[in-house]
Amino acid sequence: MMKSKIRFAQGNEVCVEAALYAGLNFFAGYPITPSTEIAEHMAYKLPRRGGTFIQMEDEIASMSAIIGASLTGQKVMTATSGPGFSLMQESLGYAIMTEIPCVIVNVQRGGPSTGLPTNVSQGDVFQAKWGTHGDYAIIALTASNHQDMFQITVDAFNLAETYRTPVVLLFDEVVGHMRERFFMPDEGDIQIVDRLKTAIKEGIDYHPYLPRDDGRLPMSDFGGIHRFNVTGLFHDMWGFPTNNPKIVDGLIHHLIDKIMNSTYEIARYKEYYLDDATRIIISYGSAARSALHVVENRRKKGERIGLLELQTLWPFPFNIIRNKCSHARYVVVVEMNMGQVVQLVKMSVERPDRVFLANRVDGVFITPTDIRNILRIVEGKGV
Amino acid sequence: MMKSKIRFAQGNEVCVEAALYAGLNFFAGYPITPSTEIAEHMAYKLPRRGGTFIQMEDEIASMSAIIGASLTGQKVMTATSGPGFSLMQESLGYAIMTEIPCVIVNVQRGGPSTGLPTNVSQGDVFQAKWGTHGDYAIIALTASNHQDMFQITVDAFNLAETYRTPVVLLFDEVVGHMRERFFMPDEGDIQIVDRLKTAIKEGIDYHPYLPRDDGRLPMSDFGGIHRFNVTGLFHDMWGFPTNNPKIVDGLIHHLIDKIMNSTYEIARYKEYYLDDATRIIISYGSAARSALHVVENRRKKGERIGLLELQTLWPFPFNIIRNKCSHARYVVVVEMNMGQVVQLVKMSVERPDRVFLANRVDGVFITPTDIRNILRIVEGKGV
Amino acid sequence: MMKSKIRFAQGNEVCVEAALYAGLNFFAGYPITPSTEIAEHMAYKLPRRGGTFIQMEDEIASMSAIIGASLTGQKVMTATSGPGFSLMQESLGYAIMTEIPCVIVNVQRGGPSTGLPTNVSQGDVFQAKWGTHGDYAIIALTASNHQDMFQITVDAFNLAETYRTPVVLLFDEVVGHMRERFFMPDEGDIQIVDRLKTAIKEGIDYHPYLPRDDGRLPMSDFGGIHRFNVTGLFHDMWGFPTNNPKIVDGLIHHLIDKIMNSTYEIARYKEYYLDDATRIIISYGSAARSALHVVENRRKKGERIGLLELQTLWPFPFNIIRNKCSHARYVVVVEMNMGQVVQLVKMSVERPDRVFLANRVDGVFITPTDIRNILRIVEGKGV
Amino acid sequence: MMKSKIRFAQGNEVCVEAALYAGLNFFAGYPITPSTEIAEHMAYKLPRRGGTFIQMEDEIASMSAIIGASLTGQKVMTATSGPGFSLMQESLGYAIMTEIPCVIVNVQRGGPSTGLPTNVSQGDVFQAKWGTHGDYAIIALTASNHQDMFQITVDAFNLAETYRTPVVLLFDEVVGHMRERFFMPDEGDIQIVDRLKTAIKEGIDYHPYLPRDDGRLPMSDFGGIHRFNVTGLFHDMWGFPTNNPKIVDGLIHHLIDKIMNSTYEIARYKEYYLDDATRIIISYGSAARSALHVVENRRKKGERIGLLELQTLWPFPFNIIRNKCSHARYVVVVEMNMGQVVQLVKMSVERPDRVFLANRVDGVFITPTDIRNILRIVEGKGV
Repeated sequence: MMKSKIRFAQGNEVCVEAALYAGLNFFAGYPITPSTEIAEHMAYKLPRRGGTFIQMEDEIASMSAIIGASLTGQKVMTATSGPGFSLMQESLGYAIMTEIPCVIVNVQRGGPSTGLPTNVSQGDVFQAKWGTHGDYAIIALTASNHQDMFQITVDAFNLAETYRTPVVLLFDEVVGHMRERFFMPDEGDIQIVDRLKTAIKEGIDYHPYLPRDDGRLPMSDFGGIHRFNVTGLFHDMWGFPTNNPKIVDGLIHHLIDKIMNSTYEIARYKEYYLDDATRIIISYGSAARSALHVVENRRKKGERIGLLELQTLWPFPFNIIRNKCSHARYVVVVEMNMGQVVQLVKMSVERPDRVFLANRVDGVFITPTDIRNILRIVEGKGV
Repeated sequence: MMKSKIRFAQGNEVCVEAALYAGLNFFAGYPITPSTEIAEHMAYKLPRRGGTFIQMEDEIASMSAIIGASLTGQKVMTATSGPGFSLMQESLGYAIMTEIPCVIVNVQRGGPSTGLPTNVSQGDVFQAKWGTHGDYAIIALTASNHQDMFQITVDAFNLAETYRTPVVLLFDEVVGHMRERFFMPDEGDIQIVDRLKTAIKEGIDYHPYLPRDDGRLPMSDFGGIHRFNVTGLFHDMWGFPTNNPKIVDGLIHHLIDKIMNSTYEIARYKEYYLDDATRIIISYGSAARSALHVVENRRKKGERIGLLELQTLWPFPFNIIRNKCSHARYVVVVEMNMGQVVQLVKMSVERPDRVFLANRVDGVFITPTDIRNILRIVEGKGV
Repeated sequence: MMKSKIRFAQGNEVCVEAALYAGLNFFAGYPITPSTEIAEHMAYKLPRRGGTFIQMEDEIASMSAIIGASLTGQKVMTATSGPGFSLMQESLGYAIMTEIPCVIVNVQRGGPSTGLPTNVSQGDVFQAKWGTHGDYAIIALTASNHQDMFQITVDAFNLAETYRTPVVLLFDEVVGHMRERFFMPDEGDIQIVDRLKTAIKEGIDYHPYLPRDDGRLPMSDFGGIHRFNVTGLFHDMWGFPTNNPKIVDGLIHHLIDKIMNSTYEIARYKEYYLDDATRIIISYGSAARSALHVVENRRKKGERIGLLELQTLWPFPFNIIRNKCSHARYVVVVEMNMGQVVQLVKMSVERPDRVFLANRVDGVFITPTDIRNILRIVEGKGV
Repeated sequence: MMKSKIRFAQGNEVCVEAALYAGLNFFAGYPITPSTEIAEHMAYKLPRRGGTFIQMEDEIASMSAIIGASLTGQKVMTATSGPGFSLMQESLGYAIMTEIPCVIVNVQRGGPSTGLPTNVSQGDVFQAKWGTHGDYAIIALTASNHQDMFQITVDAFNLAETYRTPVVLLFDEVVGHMRERFFMPDEGDIQIVDRLKTAIKEGIDYHPYLPRDDGRLPMSDFGGIHRFNVTGLFHDMWGFPTNNPKIVDGLIHHLIDKIMNSTYEIARYKEYYLDDATRIIISYGSAARSALHVVENRRKKGERIGLLELQTLWPFPFNIIRNKCSHARYVVVVEMNMGQVVQLVKMSVERPDRVFLANRVDGVFITPTDIRNILRIVEGKGV
C-alpha cells in the first residue's frame, strides 16, 4: 500500500515523527514522565526543519503558547502527562470556545495527583471529555501500536484543522515507552489537511465566527490582513461578547454539533473477527494488545469471539458499538482504570447487564492471563 | 423545629454564614463572578471571629493555601466559579490523594471558558467528578434555596472531616445571587463534626495512612507533635512513595471505597409527592425551583406527578433513584446544561428510554413554561 | 416501468389529470383556497373531453350535485378546503348511507374556521372520519408528491367504485400548490375500476341493497331501466325505510364492515429503511417529505432509522403499524396538527408511551430541523 | 339541599326550564326529531319572559343567528339532532375561533344521515369533538336523568361564559323524550355565571383578544361603546387577520389550552361504589341508567362492582379515568354506538386489553339484560 521505510523506535518518538509529517511547526511544552521523550525528540528535530520549539515554565504556559501560535497560522502541539493535563484544563476550555486548532498529547500514567509517574494507566478518558467546566465536545484519539500511533497522530492534526478544535491524543505509558517496528510513510502517502484560510480580501468585512454552508469556519492569521476579536466569552459572529440567549444557544450548539454530528466520520476503530462473534471484547490503547492476544488464541480453538479496538474515544461512537454488539451474548471491556469506557459501552447497548469490565489498576500492564481470569468469571466458571 | 432568627440575604452570604457556623477558620480565594460575594462577606466577617482571610494571586494558589492550612488543623474553604474551578483541578487531585479535608465552592456560571460570567448554568456537574486526572471519588452537594444552602454548607464541612476528603459545593448563579428569607439556626441546632485528631502520643510511631477499624484516618496537625510525610504519589501507610502493585491497588480502592461505600449515608435529597407518582421529575439546584412549581400545579389538576430534588450529586445515588423511579411511566431530568445528571439517571433506571431531559443552555433561567413545553413532547403531545 | 411523458405541474393540476385518467365525467364545486386550481383546471379540461363541469352556489350544493350525478352512472368528484369540507358533512353522511361512489378532495389549510387560507395544515384527518353524525366507515387517502398524488387519485376513483362509498382525498396546501416533475402514465398503465352495473334485466325485481355473495352491491343508473328508492334513513334491501332492529343492525354493520374488513386491501403506504430500523418515523402528505430527508441523513451516519409513509389514513391500518413497529425503540409521528395520527399510532402499538409527536401548528411547513429538534428531546438529549 | 318544587316533565322540557333558569334570552332553531320539543316549549316560554325565539330556515341559519345574538350580549342556545348538528359544523368552527359563548343541544338519534329519527343512539360523541375542520377543543356534556339534565344544562351556560366557548349538550332520544320527576330549584340555588364584560371605558383602546392574567377574555357588546373586529381567520389581539406564525401558534394553543388545562375543573361525573370496586362499568347518558341497574343488583350479591357515570365527555377526563380504574380487573364501557368512549377509555388506562364494550346499535335502548349478557363473555363465561 504505502511506500515506506522500516523504523524501530519508541512510541513517543513515533508521535514526534508523525506530528512533523502532519506539518507541525510550533511546539511548546514542559517535560513530565512518561511524555518527556516527545519534548526531547521535538527539541532536536523541529528547529532543524525551521519550526519553533519552546520549553515553557509550566503546562498552563505551554497550552497558552500553542493557542497563540495557532492563531498566527501555525500547526501546533503540546505534550504532557496526567498532572500537566489537569493544569491545562482552563486554557483547553479557551481553545474549545475560540475554536483554535491544536493537538494535546497526554501520555497517561497512574493517577490521581502525581500518582505513579512511571507506570501505565488509562485513567484520564473521562477527564479528556469533562475536565474543563461547562458543556462542550472534544475529539480524543488513541492507539495500541506504533503504526497506528503514526496514523492517528496525523489524523489528530487533520481533525483539528477540519473541525477547528483541540484534539487530544490519549496515549499511555506502555505505548509511549515501548519500542517496536513501524513503517515510515513517504510524503503524500497520508493526506494532510491544511488550515482553511478565509478567501475574504483585505478591507472587506471578515466574520471569524460565521459558519460557511458546510459548517466550517475559515480562519485568518493573527497579524495578517484582518483584525478580529477572540474571546473565551460567548460571542457573536464578529467575535464580540454577548449574552443574547439566541446567540448563546446557537454557539453552544455549534461547538457541540460540529463534532457530535460528525461522530461517524471521526470514528476510527479496528475490527477483529467480529463478523460472527457472539462474545465481544472492546479495548483500546496498549490494553488492546493483550485483548487481541486472547481473542486470537481462543479463535484457534473455534470460539466465536472478536475484538473491537477503539481508536476514537471522543466523540464516543455509541451507535457503532450498539450495532456491532447487537448479537453479542456478552461484551467485556478491557481497560486499565476503575471502569470508564465500560460505562459508555453499557450506555450503548440494549442489555447493559451483559457488559463486563476486565481491568487492572495497580500500575501493572494488564496481561492476557488477567483477561482470561476475568472471562472465566463472566462465563460463570468462577476463578 | 430549630430556634432561629429570620434573615433576608443573598445566597452567597448564606454560604458564608453557614461556613462560619460549621467552624471555618481559614479562607483563601480569588474573586470571580458569580462567587465573588462569598469572598467579600468572608473578608469582613472571618477576621472578626479570629479566623484568617487571604486573597491569593489566583485559584491555584488559593487551593494550595487551603490544603496547607487544613494540614495544620484548620477548617478551610475556597470559593470560585467555572474557570477558577478548572484551574484548581490539579491541586484538587492532590487533596484527594493526600486525603485533606477541605471545602471548595463552585458557584456555576455559563461555560466553557470565560463563557457567561453573570448568567446561570449547571454545566460543571461532570467536571466535579472527572476534572482531575486518574480515578477517584469525590463528594459534591448542591441546594435550591437558602435554607437548604445553609444546611448543605454545614454538611459539606462535616462530610469533609468525616471522610477526610475535599467536598465540592456546586451552587449556581441564581441561588448564589438570589435574595430570600432563611432562618438562622442557633449554635447547637445543627451538629458539627470536628477534626478527628489522632490519639497517638508524641514519640510514638504515627502512621498517617493506616486506617482505623472503621476505615477513618485520624490526623495530626502539621507543626504539631508528629512528623509525617505527605505526597501526591501513591504511598504506603507512612506516606512514603511506592509503586508496589499491592499497595497501589489498596490505596486506589481505599480512596474510592471510603466514599462509594457510604453513598447511602452521604445521599441528601428531598421528595415531593413521590408516593403515588407515576411521572417523576428529577432536578437540583435552582432548576428544582421551577420543577417544583410545575409539579405543584399539575398535582392540583389531579396528575400523579412528583419531584425528587437531589442535593448530593456525587457520589451519585444510583440505587436510590432506581428505587424511587421503579414505577414511573417516565422520568424527566430538569437541569441547565446539555444533559449531565440525565445520563446518570439513565444509568440508574431499568428503562433508560423513558428518561428525558428538560433543559436550557442559553444562560436564561429555566422556567416552568420551558419545562411544560418539553413535557408536552415527552407525553407525545408535540409542540 | 410505466410508459410516460415527463410533466412539470402544480399538485392540484396533477389531481385533475389523474381524475380525468380515472374516467371522471362530472365535477361540481365551489372555489376555495388552496383547492381552487382544481376547479380552474377542471373547468378548462373536463368539457373538452365531453364531461360536465358546474360551479355551484356553495359546497352543500356541490356535494348534492355529485351525489345525484353519480346515481345516474357518472364518475364524480368535488374539491374543496376545510370550511367547505365542514359544510359538506351532512350530505357526505347521505352518500355514506346510500352508498354512492364519489370522490371528495380536501386540500387542507389551517383551521378551525376560515383559519389560514393560504397556509399548510393537516388538521382535518379526524374530521374525515368523524365529521358527520353517527357511526360509519370511510376511505381517506393522501400523498406526499406528485407521482404518488396521480396514483392515489386514480386509486380513489377505483376504491369508490369497488366499495360503493365516498372516498376522501386529504391533500394539503404544500402538495397542492407545489410544482414538481411527474411522469404522466399512458392509457392502460394503471388499471381503472368501472361502475359495477347490475345484470338484472328490465322488468325483473331489482334489490338495490341486497349484497352479492362478495358483499358488493351492483348499481342501476337513475333514469335507466330500474326504478328504486334511495333514502338517508335506515332501509331494507329495496331501499325502503325501516326501524326494524335486525335490519338496522345489519345495515350499520354492512356499511362499516365492507370497508373495515378490507383494511388490508385498502392500505397504501411506502417503506424506507424499515427492515432493520429500531427508530421509526411515521408521516404522511407533505410532512413526509421532511421526514424522509431526516431519515436519509441519519442513515448516512449509521443510524438504524426508517420511515413509514402512510397513504391510506382511513381505514387506519392499525395492524400494519403494530407489525412494522414491533421492534422499534421509539416511534415519532410527523404531522402538521395538534396530534391526530399520533393518537391512532399510540392505539396501534404495544407501548404507546414510546410514541411521540413531531408537529408544527403555526401554518409554516415543518422542516427537517423542526423534526431533528424534537427527536433530540425524544432521545433524552434536551434542547 | 336546594329548595325546590317537584315537577314531572319530559327531558326536552327540563332542558328548556334549565336554560331559562341559566339566563337564556335568545333561542334560534329549526325543528328536528327528537329535539323538536325543545323548540316548542321555548317558543311558548321564552317570549313571555321577554326573550327572543326565532325559527330559522335551517340549522346553518340557526347557528349563525345565535352567534350574532351572543355578540350583542345575549345568552343563546340552539337545539337540533344528528343531521342538523352536521349542518352546523362549519359555523360551530366559527364560534370556536371567535370565542363566542353559546350552547348547542344535540338530542342524538340513530345515524348516519337521516338514519333513525325516532330511535335512541349515542353515536355523535366523536363528531362533537371532530366535526368541524382543524384542531380545537370543545366542551360537551351529557346526563342520564332529569335532575342531572337540569344541573348540566345550567352548567353548560356557565361554562360557555367562563371559557368563552361553544358548549355542546349531547343528550339522547331516551332522556329527551322520557318523562320523570325532578326538583325545580329556586332562584339562587344554582350559581349563575354572567357574561364577563370589559371594564375598558369608551374611547379607550379595547383589545378583544388580549387575555387577562387569568386567561379569560372579557367581551364588549356589539353595538355598544367599542368597535372591534371579529373574524374566523387567525387573528391578533385586536381581532385583525394575521398569518404571523408566532401569533398563529399562540392563538391555536390559547383556544385549546383554555379548555384542556381546565379538564379537571370542567370534569363532571358521578361515582357509584367505586371505592373498593375491582370491576368497573363506565357509562353516560341514558345507557348509564341500565348500567346502574346492573351494578346495584350485583352489589346486593356481594360483587365488588362499581359505576363511573361520565357527564363531561369533552374535554375527556383521561387522568380521572386512569386513576379510578388503576386497580380494576376489567372495565366495561356501556354506550349505544359502535364504540366511541370505549376507545378513549382504552387510551386512558394502563392495560387497554382489559377494557370491553357493551353496546347496542339497532336503535333499541340497551337493557340491563344486554349488559349482563356481555359481562358473562367478559368474565369468560360465554353466552
